[in-house]
Order: sequence, then C-alpha cells, then structure tokens
Amino acid sequence: MHMNAQQSGHRFDYIRDGAEIYRRSFATIRAEADLTRFTSDEETVAVRVIHACGMVEIANDLFFSPNAAVLARRALRDGAPILCDSKMVANGVTRSRLPSRNEVICTLDHLSVAELAREIGNTRSAAALELWRERLDGAVVAIGNAPTALFHLIDMLEHMSARPACIIGMPVGFVGAAESKEALIELAPAPYITMRGRKGGSAMTAAALNALAGDAE
Amino acid sequence: MHMNAQQSGHRFDYIRDGAEIYRRSFATIRAEADLTRFTSDEETVAVRVIHACGMVEIANDLFFSPNAAVLARRALRDGAPILCDSKMVANGVTRSRLPSRNEVICTLDHLSVAELAREIGNTRSAAALELWRERLDGAVVAIGNAPTALFHLIDMLEHMSARPACIIGMPVGFVGAAESKEALIELAPAPYITMRGRKGGSAMTAAALNALAGDAE
Repeated sequence: MHMNAQQSGHRFDYIRDGAEIYRRSFATIRAEADLTRFTSDEETVAVRVIHACGMVEIANDLFFSPNAAVLARRALRDGAPILCDSKMVANGVTRSRLPSRNEVICTLDHLSVAELAREIGNTRSAAALELWRERLDGAVVAIGNAPTALFHLIDMLEHMSARPACIIGMPVGFVGAAESKEALIELAPAPYITMRGRKGGSAMTAAALNALAGDAE
Repeated sequence: MHMNAQQSGHRFDYIRDGAEIYRRSFATIRAEADLTRFTSDEETVAVRVIHACGMVEIANDLFFSPNAAVLARRALRDGAPILCDSKMVANGVTRSRLPSRNEVICTLDHLSVAELAREIGNTRSAAALELWRERLDGAVVAIGNAPTALFHLIDMLEHMSARPACIIGMPVGFVGAAESKEALIELAPAPYITMRGRKGGSAMTAAALNALAGDAE
C-alpha cells in the first residue's frame, strides 16, 4: 500500500509500490498494443520490450524466427550463458529473474580487445565477440548496441559449427543497424529475435532477455 | 580504413571503423532532424540522444530549462559527481569522456536501500536517492529509469537547500513517467533536461550526459 500525498507529507500523489507499477504498466501495454500475431511466449517479450521504451507501436517491428522464444527460454532454464555486446545490456539483465544462475558475460573490456580489433580491422564491439568462440554453442546472445557486433557474429557463425540457442539482435542506430538486422532475418544462422529498422538498444535487448528468463511478469 | 568484403573474406561490406560510424551517424541525424530551436550546447545533446534511440523525431520531445546544458557542462568540467538512478545509466556513462575523472555514483545496491524503501513507503529506486543527500549540491543528476526516483527527488529538493547543477530527468514508461517529467518542468527545482511523454530511458539519459561531458563529438 502506498500513502497518499497528505499522509506522507509528499507534494505528489503517485504510485509508490513497485509491483503495482509493473501491473498497471503491463495492463496499459496490453490495452493499447496490438499483440495478436504473437504466441504467448513472444507476447511476454513484446510486452517487456514495449515497457522498456514506452512505445506500444514498436510491437510492429519485433520479429521472431519460429520457436525462438521457446528455445531461448528453455536454454536459459538449462543454464545457458548470456553473451552481451555491451555493459549496458549486461547490467540490464535482472539477476534475480535468471532461472539457473546463468553467467552474464561481456568481453568488451578484456585487455586483448583493442589488439584484436586492430587485427581483424573492426570495432572493439565486434572484436570482443572473438572471445565468445568457446561459449557460443547453446548460448543466448544479446546484442543491443553495435551493428558491427551483429554483422561479425553472423560472419563468425558461417565458419563455425557452434550454434547459439537464440540470438537477440537489436542494435540501434543510423549506420548498419537496420542492415545488420535484415541480414540476421535473411540468413538466420540461429533462432533469433530482432527489431526491424533503426530502433533497438540495450534497454530493449535486456528487456527481451528478462522476459525470457523468468516466468513471473 | 576498413577492408571490403572481398579482401577480408567477410560476407558483408559494412563500415568497420568506429570513428567513421559516429561521423556518418551524426551527419545523418543532422540531415534528418529538426534541431533549429536548440542552442549549440543543446544541439549536441539532442544529436546524441537521437543517436541512442534511432529516432530523429524525438528532438520534438526534448526540453531544456534556460542554460541547463551550459550549467551541466560547466559543473562536469569542475568535477561534479554524477548521480544515477540505475546501473544501466551509470554503465552508459563513457568514462573516457569525463573531463575531471568525475565520480559516477549509483546507490541502488546499497545494503540499506531495501530497509529505506520500507521506511519511506516508496520503491527501491526512490529510496536509493536518500543516500544522495550529502552529494546533491552541485551534482549532475541522471535519472533514466524510475519515475518514482524523479518524483522523490523533486520532493527531497523542496525540503533541502542543496541544488543540483542540473537534473537530466528522462525516466521511461507507462506509469508516472510523463507525469514526473511534467512535474520537473512545472516546478523546476534546478536546471533540467527532460524528454516529455512516455519515452526516455537509461540509454538516452546516458547519451545526454555523454554529450555534456566531452567536447569531441
């Protein structure tokens, strides 16, 4: 229960109970968004992604390969590591929702990344993925920042037999973001969840992961 | 210089140079967004906020109190701490852009926060701000996640003489986000930068901070 403004001496009356804020937020999203084309697992992802950005219309840009949400959910339950392209994504993963104390890995700050970037002639974000090679098979990948990371992942998977359980590929921006996500849809090197166009980002990516990690809304 | 697809054996031809990606992104944003109503300091904030979300139209929702961008920039140069409501905001601050090795503070995980939340009958995000009291004067505040944190900050400032140098208030969502930002605009307890409506979030908030921290684009 939250106190009203008078009781508490606060100037504003607003909802102060976290669980109640979630409930009302999700109810508003379900009332306003068109979620009819989604399966129930996909719908929980859509609701949380909308919640992270404040835009119900973004549901139109959200695409899942067949069964991707189910496969990601199962992999997380079975203990799959979560490979993140940015620290913001890694920090957006709600640890208490993870079903198997899954590892959350971001290799961007590894000492070898700057040198790797020079070697492969790519960004640090892309080079950091070179350190994922041993962990990629069966992992859940969450790319929310760098289009170069998503492009590089697709390239890496062409030359590897390892397959992630699911790629959440939602980089944001004006150069390469839309193109890298179209490449993910076209080539589908693994099950994927993506957001077509320029929109995306760390918060939406972490929200999709959080939706798949836990059963509670 | 980046290699083309043929030279590198990569399947895709995409820009692999981080600095060039930034340049083209910002050029696209400036070509497409209407930034005419902004001062030059405000414009650099608008460009980075747009860059963080992929939406040029969001410039219309971005509001600055008079001189807020200049004051925030000056405070950061003078060593002001950066007080963040979420770890995602704190992690989105690019440390290499900070002009004075400014402290980046997020108190959300402090051991006393759960108990404080019960005491004040509010969310953990709001309660965490109670631990900011000694640091608020002259600080740059970055609230990108929780409307309750922004409401609580405005309430706290009514009963304190301390004044932040600038409040970047851009919480996102469906319950309280728009209302808390309208309260910030209406009451203006300190210089502010905000995003009207439901949109906002950690990435945009960190982007605004990063724009104000450094001179380089």
